[in-house]
Amino acid sequence: MTREFGGLTIFSQIAKKLPNEDIIYLGDTKQFPYGGKSKETIIELTKKNIEFLIKEGVKAVVIACGTATSQALEEIEGKYSIPIIGIIKPTVLDMLKENRIGEIGIMATTGTIRSGAWEREINREIKNAKVINKACPLLAIMAEEGWTSNEIARLTIREYVKCFKKTNINKLILGCTHYPLFKDLINEELGDKIDIIDVGVNVAKYLRGLLEETGSSNVNTNKPKYNIYLTDMETEFLNVANRFINKDIEIKKAIID
Amino acid sequence: MTREFGGLTIFSQIAKKLPNEDIIYLGDTKQFPYGGKSKETIIELTKKNIEFLIKEGVKAVVIACGTATSQALEEIEGKYSIPIIGIIKPTVLDMLKENRIGEIGIMATTGTIRSGAWEREINREIKNAKVINKACPLLAIMAEEGWTSNEIARLTIREYVKCFKKTNINKLILGCTHYPLFKDLINEELGDKIDIIDVGVNVAKYLRGLLEETGSSNVNTNKPKYNIYLTDMETEFLNVANRFINKDIEIKKAIID
Repeated sequence: MTREFGGLTIFSQIAKKLPNEDIIYLGDTKQFPYGGKSKETIIELTKKNIEFLIKEGVKAVVIACGTATSQALEEIEGKYSIPIIGIIKPTVLDMLKENRIGEIGIMATTGTIRSGAWEREINREIKNAKVINKACPLLAIMAEEGWTSNEIARLTIREYVKCFKKTNINKLILGCTHYPLFKDLINEELGDKIDIIDVGVNVAKYLRGLLEETGSSNVNTNKPKYNIYLTDMETEFLNVANRFINKDIEIKKAIID
Repeated sequence: MTREFGGLTIFSQIAKKLPNEDIIYLGDTKQFPYGGKSKETIIELTKKNIEFLIKEGVKAVVIACGTATSQALEEIEGKYSIPIIGIIKPTVLDMLKENRIGEIGIMATTGTIRSGAWEREINREIKNAKVINKACPLLAIMAEEGWTSNEIARLTIREYVKCFKKTNINKLILGCTHYPLFKDLINEELGDKIDIIDVGVNVAKYLRGLLEETGSSNVNTNKPKYNIYLTDMETEFLNVANRFINKDIEIKKAIID
């Protein structure tokens, strides 16, 4: 039973920060998980997904997936007529606002860590930043199993964050959109001194800024429309989606070949 | 760090039961894990892998992967001039030798369970068999993390086998080649009354019978040659492989496009 609701953590932040905007969410439930797929496959799938959304008439696309952002975005940037926003740049730009940047920890899927995309963006913007990476191949699937607060999740998080304990990180980026579901457990393990960065908040702020700058924000204050497309219909998705979004949502099947 | 050493549990059984035979092992480390991939992708990858091995001159191919067997074998059976053996048929045929077949439990990846391949083969051979399926999407990756006897593995196994406790199963098939690594934990949870079936033993016996029948067993008793090909080179693989095979092995890179 694959679901792919990682992107919903981004969806809920955008819905909160841009309450007038209609949102079309495409969950690639058929191809989940992206974490272990090859770069070529991820680029191909990401392009198809973007083209599907463009046909639906969107004015911007958010790649609400850490793996697709890290593996595909550099490759496809500038190839479309509308802005394509990933989760990395908004997060790194937001960090620049602070003076206090020490070592930065990153938890992400194996593919994301391997890609080095976070490290490249951080090094481009922040001089002498030291990045400590941790690939966490079990977490996205564990979230999809609904195990985000049981003992298995607690011990898994303990194991994965162990590598950060002897470091001086003061920021920990959750580089996969499923990981905010483990935020409390990570916090319990690492304590309050480490700022845990939920990328959804940064993406939503960045998107709002971009729409305002280009004068394309929606000023109509009617109730926004939320449409969810899935590439493989999955009844449980609706229950999960309702936990994230307290609004009426409609779920349809997307045919993407 | 993906590895794909699931197939090694089959390799070690074949090496034990057919000590005169040379073995070429192809580990598709680049594409691991297969568990969540689409049927079409798995068929395509399986074909390419088989064709690679045929070019290397093998006399039979064992698909030492539960997901590839369940998703691709029915599709490609009879299309090659040499025998292509999966893990399902040898296991079901072996069960027929016993009178005492009650309910049968199956643990496997999501893709394997969804395919219904085990259930189809069991129903074809055994009348009125009742099958109880359990998809275990975390286990293969957990094995690749090396977590096969820690507390996380124990609790995960406890959670996954819970569904069998109120049933009358007396056989439990481990339908993914990684799962024999969890055999002790499963046994501890379910007790000795349930016969846990490690498919590798059945595959090796079936292969030996087939080679004997067709007069193609190797009668040369020189030390056999073991060659391992990986599609993505991974240094840790050798350490893992040595745990399974106490023989000299050579590892090469396989180029499969």
